[in-house]
Formats: sequence, C-alpha cells, structure tokens
Amino acid sequence: MDNYTKYTELLSEISDISHATALLHWDLETYMPKNGHARRAQQIGTLSKLAHQKITNPELKKLVDDLMADLPADAKQASNIKHSARDLKRKTLFDDKFVEEMSRATSEAFFHWQKAKQENDFGVYAPFLQKVIDLKRKEAKIVGFKDHPYDALCDEYEPDCTVKDIDGIFEGVKRDLKPLLDAIQSKPQVDDSFMGQYFNHDKQWNFGIEVLKDMGYDFDGGRQDISSHPFTINFAATDVRVTTRVSEETFNEMLWSCIHEGGHALYEQGLPDSEYGLPSGEAVSLGIHESQSRLWENNVGRSLEFWEWKFARLKEIFPAQFEGVSAMDFFKAMNKVQPSLIRVNADELTYHFHILIRYELEKAIMEEKLNANDLPAAWNAKYKEYLDVDVPNYSQGVLQDIHWSHGSIGYFPTYSIGSFYAAQFHAAAEKEIGTLDPNNAETYLKNLLSWLRENIHQYGKQYSSKELCERISGETLNSKFFMDYAQKKYGLIYGI
Amino acid sequence: MDNYTKYTELLSEISDISHATALLHWDLETYMPKNGHARRAQQIGTLSKLAHQKITNPELKKLVDDLMADLPADAKQASNIKHSARDLKRKTLFDDKFVEEMSRATSEAFFHWQKAKQENDFGVYAPFLQKVIDLKRKEAKIVGFKDHPYDALCDEYEPDCTVKDIDGIFEGVKRDLKPLLDAIQSKPQVDDSFMGQYFNHDKQWNFGIEVLKDMGYDFDGGRQDISSHPFTINFAATDVRVTTRVSEETFNEMLWSCIHEGGHALYEQGLPDSEYGLPSGEAVSLGIHESQSRLWENNVGRSLEFWEWKFARLKEIFPAQFEGVSAMDFFKAMNKVQPSLIRVNADELTYHFHILIRYELEKAIMEEKLNANDLPAAWNAKYKEYLDVDVPNYSQGVLQDIHWSHGSIGYFPTYSIGSFYAAQFHAAAEKEIGTLDPNNAETYLKNLLSWLRENIHQYGKQYSSKELCERISGETLNSKFFMDYAQKKYGLIYGI
Repeated sequence: MDNYTKYTELLSEISDISHATALLHWDLETYMPKNGHARRAQQIGTLSKLAHQKITNPELKKLVDDLMADLPADAKQASNIKHSARDLKRKTLFDDKFVEEMSRATSEAFFHWQKAKQENDFGVYAPFLQKVIDLKRKEAKIVGFKDHPYDALCDEYEPDCTVKDIDGIFEGVKRDLKPLLDAIQSKPQVDDSFMGQYFNHDKQWNFGIEVLKDMGYDFDGGRQDISSHPFTINFAATDVRVTTRVSEETFNEMLWSCIHEGGHALYEQGLPDSEYGLPSGEAVSLGIHESQSRLWENNVGRSLEFWEWKFARLKEIFPAQFEGVSAMDFFKAMNKVQPSLIRVNADELTYHFHILIRYELEKAIMEEKLNANDLPAAWNAKYKEYLDVDVPNYSQGVLQDIHWSHGSIGYFPTYSIGSFYAAQFHAAAEKEIGTLDPNNAETYLKNLLSWLRENIHQYGKQYSSKELCERISGETLNSKFFMDYAQKKYGLIYGI
Repeated sequence: MDNYTKYTELLSEISDISHATALLHWDLETYMPKNGHARRAQQIGTLSKLAHQKITNPELKKLVDDLMADLPADAKQASNIKHSARDLKRKTLFDDKFVEEMSRATSEAFFHWQKAKQENDFGVYAPFLQKVIDLKRKEAKIVGFKDHPYDALCDEYEPDCTVKDIDGIFEGVKRDLKPLLDAIQSKPQVDDSFMGQYFNHDKQWNFGIEVLKDMGYDFDGGRQDISSHPFTINFAATDVRVTTRVSEETFNEMLWSCIHEGGHALYEQGLPDSEYGLPSGEAVSLGIHESQSRLWENNVGRSLEFWEWKFARLKEIFPAQFEGVSAMDFFKAMNKVQPSLIRVNADELTYHFHILIRYELEKAIMEEKLNANDLPAAWNAKYKEYLDVDVPNYSQGVLQDIHWSHGSIGYFPTYSIGSFYAAQFHAAAEKEIGTLDPNNAETYLKNLLSWLRENIHQYGKQYSSKELCERISGETLNSKFFMDYAQKKYGLIYGI
C-alpha cells in the first residue's frame, strides 16, 4: 500500500470515530432519555480521546512528514497533505498536561456559566472564566503569531484570518452601517403585530419541511428533528441532519432556523462523499460555512421576491393569522430592525454590532487589557455606545453566550465574516444565474444550489477561504457587497 | 492505581466503544436516512475493530492473568475476573486469519441469504452457507469440547450449557407437549376473527406505551421507537430502548413486541449501573435474557387474569372492534394454537417444535451428518414429522431465519430454554408474591418486578444461569414447570 493510500485510510478511520461521536451528541440533543446523561458524557469522552490518540499518533505524523517531503503530483492530494501537516502541527504543539488543563478549565467554566446565567450572578463564573482566559493567552503563545495574539486563536476557526483582516472589515461596518441604522431609526417603525398570534405546531413543522425541500435539501441523505437549540450535524455527506425548535407563540424561530440550518446542511450534502475523512471532503472554515447558512437565510429567505412567491402558500396554511397581510407586509415584518440586547435574536443589521462588541472585548482580553472581572462593565459600556441599549442584568448581557465558557475566543467574528461572504458570493451568483423571479422561483433555487455546488461545495478545503473569495468575486473579502445589499433592501423597507 | 481498578477502567472504555457502536445500530434501524447506509456500515466496522483490539490487547490479558493469580477477596470482584478470564480465553483462541475468514464468510452468506429468500432459491445461498458451516466446525475444534462439538458453540450463548442438558429438556417436550397438542387439535378451534379488523396506528402506539408503563418500564431511562423488526438495545442501564412495529391490520404485532421487548428492557434497566462495563453489570446469558421477555409476554401478558384487568381499558380505546368480546374471548384469541410454517409467528406451544427442528438439524450439521445442500429436504421432513405441516417453498421453510447466515449456530435453543426458565422462575415468584388478582393488578406487577430485580437483575453475571436457577427454584432447569403452566392454561382454553 502506498503512503497516500495509508494516509487516506488513517484519516477515514479517525473520521469514523468522530462521526460516531457526533451521533452520540445528536442523540443526546434529540432523543436520549434524561437518565442517560452521565454515561453518555463518559462515552463521548472516551471516543473523543480515542480520536485524539489516533490524530496525534506518531504513525500519522511520520506518514504526513514523508508525504510532505515528496508531495503527490496530484493537486488535490497535495493540498490534502498540506492541510493535514498544518492541522497536525497545531495539534501536536500542546502537551498532554495543557490539553488536560484546558479540558478541565472549560468543563468547570461551562458548568459555572450555566449556574451564573441562571442565577444572574457573574461572580460565580468569573474565576473560572479567568482560568480559561489565562489558558487561551498561553495557547496563543504556544501557537505563536506575527502581529497579534488574537491571530493565533482565530486561525483555528478561520485559517489565515488576522486581526488586520477583521479590523479592515469592521471599519467598513462602523463607517457605513451606523448611518444606515440611524436613518432607519428616524423612520416610522415596521408593524409586525400579526406575528404575535398562535401558530399550530404541526402546520409550522410541515411548512418548514416544505421550505427545506424547496431549497433542495435531500431528505434521502438527511432528516429534521426537534432539539432545544437548532443545529446541523453530519455523519457523512450522505447523512447530514438538521434540527429546529417550534414555538406556537413565535413562528419566526422555526422558519429561520430551518432555512439557516438548511443552508449549512446543503453545504455538507454538497461535499464530495468520495473524499470522506479528507480535507478535500470537508468545509473550508467556519466563515465559509456561515456564508452558506446566511446566504439562504438572509439573501434568499428574507428577500421580497422569495415571499412574493412563497407567501401565498404560507397564507393557505395560516389563513386566519395572515388575513389582510400582503407579501410586502410579511417581508417587512421579517426584516424589522430594532437594536436589542440578545445577539441570537438580533436583526440582520444590528447583529454585526453584537459581534463587533464581542470582538473588541476579545482583542482586549488577548492584549491583557481586560480580565474576567472587567468584562461586565466593558460589555455594558459598549452596548450603550454601539446600540444605545442599557443592559439590565448579567444574564441578558455578558452571560448570554456560551462561547467563552467553551474556550471559543476568536470564534465570534466568523459570524459576521459569514454574512459578508454571503453577500459577496450571492452578488457573484446573481451575475451568472440572474435574480429570483417570483414567477419562476423553483428554477432560481435550483440554479442557485447548482452554482454553490459548482463554485464552493465540490472543492472541500482545496481552496482556502481567501482563494475561494478571489476566484468567485475577483476581490478580497470586504463589507461593500453587504452594504450594497443592505442599502437596497432596507431602503425599500424604510423608504430611505 | 491497583490492578482491579485498572481492569475496571479498561472494561469501562471497551463498553463505551461497544455502546457507541450500539447507538450506530439503533439509529440505522430507526431514524437513519437511506443514503447513510454505506458510510454507517463502515463506521460500525471501524468501531467494532477498535473494541476488538482493546479486548484482545495483551495489556488486558496480562492484567486479568495477574488478577487470576491473586484473586480479589471480594466475591463480586473475583467473579468478574473469572468471567473476563473465560471471555478472553475464548476470544484469543482465534487468530486474525480465522476472524477475518469468518467475518467475510458471514457477510457473504448474509448477502446471499437475503437474495435467496427473496428469490426463493436455496441454491444461491447453499455454497456460502456451506462455507460458514465449515468454519463453525473448525471453530468447535479450536474451542474444544468434551462430549459434542455443538457444546463448543452453544457455550457462547448459554455458558456451560451442553447437548446433554438440551437433549434432556427436549425429551420432556417431546414426551409431554405432543399429547397436549394432539388433544388441542381434537377440540373446537378458538374464534379470533374479531382481530382481523382495522386498529388505528396512534391508538395502538399509545396503548403499547401504557402497557410498558404498567410493567414498570422507566421512560426516564428509555424510550420506544418504530423499526421494521422490534428489538431491545442498551447504552447503559440508564438508557435502555425498545422498538416496535405497528400494523393497522395486525394488532397483535405491536402489543406482543411491546411486552416481549419490555421484558428484555426491564432486565437491562435492572442491572446495576455502578457495575457498568463489568460482568456484574451484564445479563447472565441469552437464555436468562429470553426468560425475562417470555415471562412478561407469556406467563403474565397472555394470562387470563391480566386481561380480566386490562381488557376493559383496551375496549375503551377500540369499542367498535371489541363490541361483544369478553376478556375471556380476547384471552383465548391471544392464545390460539395452530401448527404453522413460520417460527416467529408461532403460538407458545408449537413454538418449541420449531426450535427442536432447528436444534436437531444443527446437531447433525456439527456431527457432519448434514451439509448445506441436505438442509431443505431434512427441514421439510422434520416439519412434517413434528408439526404435520407441508413446506411449500424455501422462503417459508429453511430460508426463513437469519441466524445461520450470521454464523449463529447454537443460538436457537436459548429461545426454548428462555421459556422454560420463565415458567420455572414465575412459579417461584408466585410462591412468594401470590398470583395476579385482576382487582389489584398494579400491586402484583410492582411486586413481580421487585422480585425479578431482587432475585435476578441485581446480580448481573455474579451467578451462572444454572446457579441462579438452583437458588430460585431449588432444582435444575427442566420442562416440568412449563408443562404444568401449559396444561393449566390450555386446559382452560380448550376444555381439556
């Protein structure tokens, strides 16, 4: 067996273990009876350890080193080897003691974050968060960086993305988005009171399934289930599942989680199954993943044209609730802008200030200018500055997100980056396939998916996010496409 | 860390991998989208291999050898070590080549069995079955035996059970059961025509859940789902799941699978979670497992007293279908005796002849008196002899069961053994807790479960099936208790 074949077999085996672990998680979030928790946590721990042992096994390292010294002629194979070399380099930087310490620190921080949030008591959480912060600072030093310690962290989620890149993007946001927001707030507000009605669970569920099918989500290679927090999970490109939650009081939740998770899932379903376990069979980065979910959710799903096509169907299902409501009314309600406290409920525009706030705090943490105890005051000040919102308590403020307790510092910017990639990709796609015609929406949706498959999904990690962006749009990532999209859409809604 | 603690940690890790594999199976049978099959099979293969590597790792062997040389003073710990030594001995007897050969042979046999059954063509299957037979004969030689090569095989499913034991039990069956069957056949047959009606899916489902709750099945540590073949599966004593199938034309299927699988599940839920991964946390044998399912299904669930209590409720759910039907009518219909072709649909009495036929064929195979090509004729002759049934084709005859294609020779007798243990245990239980009073059934069911927990479940493998039987009933396994039970029940039904 040649070295490259050996390498693919080892990676496939690691992938099998990781996907089995993913199924343990999926089941835990969907169907597991409550008493199963303790043993399930243990089983997940054992499988994660096994996968880690296989990844850090010297046999794999040696194989990849040998292949790096004598790269395969095939470009895809060579790219896989380079990705693996890079991954292994990062993963083998940390000794067992550090991995163990981080694992314990994040477990404890997560536990105390839950407690703190429930009890609205930041003090319960602060010392454990500080431990995580100390370790993340240490991690950045171990990984190394050229310009900013934050670069060492965000590289894990968005390879090669640096503070310089993110600052550049957010500069555009601050410059252009704030005036748009101010203009919106000076206009009469959108009426979305008709959404405050009762929407039957099963009817919502069926409509969500229908929309997923409209998007091209393949139910022969996936399914939707209920969980308390919606997510997408894959066990292979041939088995990619989504979850949603349904509230009879808040119709929005189900609808937007279906489309958002559906977008993630279409990406995973579009990755080549033949490249199972290899970088060429995996998503590029969190930012590119998020671009797929947001493109479907916002650029397509929240467009006027989409609802000029689909609203008649929705009205058929809920005739009483939407009596006298037009597609335009629904479109406006779905895009209502309102500065608020909670990131996950934010509209498409103010959302980026939620991210900016977190990003600025994380940078300051990594620059050792802020520690855990300083975060509540800094958080509240920034919410006042950027969104003119007064934070009434910890739970709806600095304690709202799970990320830091997990040690995920450097993760938040990928959410905004995803939106900006989405706008940039969507503009490129529409140049080729045209815009959504409400009288022929099925064709547009089919063409859009084909375009995404051809230009993004099929490549796996063969191109980096930067390369992909250049290939598709001819320029680097920037907020211009997003701003053009936002000006046009919100101009229409608010008459600006 | 002392050796016994190390040993428990290794076993717990192996158990984690096995239970993750079990979840991959559960999902495959319940919720997996159809395109997931190929990768799922691969993932199951990888995890099975990992578990096997951990089990046959010399580190574990050495640890168990050391502990065997210096057995712990604690009886439970000592019993665990002895069980593990025995397991490891059997598992390390086979070299990789033999394991690989058996795995390939059974995969091929299974594939061709499916094809052969579908096409009613035994010839398609015969050469692959012969390969499995050859390997099972080889396996018996590798394992070794005192009296009969069959002993080496059935020992895997029912430890220490020999041809001598099984012959002894079936002698009683042939002697006593045949006359009872003849007597039944000379009497007017039971009218069960009211069962041939439409029974709504959801109503059946809800009734099944209710019966599981009546039995004491804990839904906080389990759940029921739909699969094409009902089964019980455990991921820990704290997460034991059952599946059923619902046919609106055949109400029986759902009801009896619920109670049967529920019986299996109560055993698994009753095993001590503190002994996770250890023999003391595992079921004794297939026969004892089957005793639990059959005790609930037959001795309890098919009793007149049970339906004198529960039939009113069933009638409330299906008033039209059961108009004019009494608890006695329903009881009789549920116990109708009728010699037939298919084992899984057989009544409680003729069932044992289906097993006897398979057992006699398997013995002859192991004695090298029969080969694959001889099986159809031998099968048909025995069905004529024992059940006076003409076998019209292969699919409803020799091809009906999956077992031989899996290499499971020596497995079938555990089904009958289970019924006989059930009758013997049930008789012992009723001596202590009394019989089911239809006016106070809840108390009886609660007491019965407590009795099973106390006398069987809590011990795991601490006692062998033979020891357990002696402790509970004061005598070795025999068919007397089953015959007493059968004479009484069928005497009542058929007026004998």
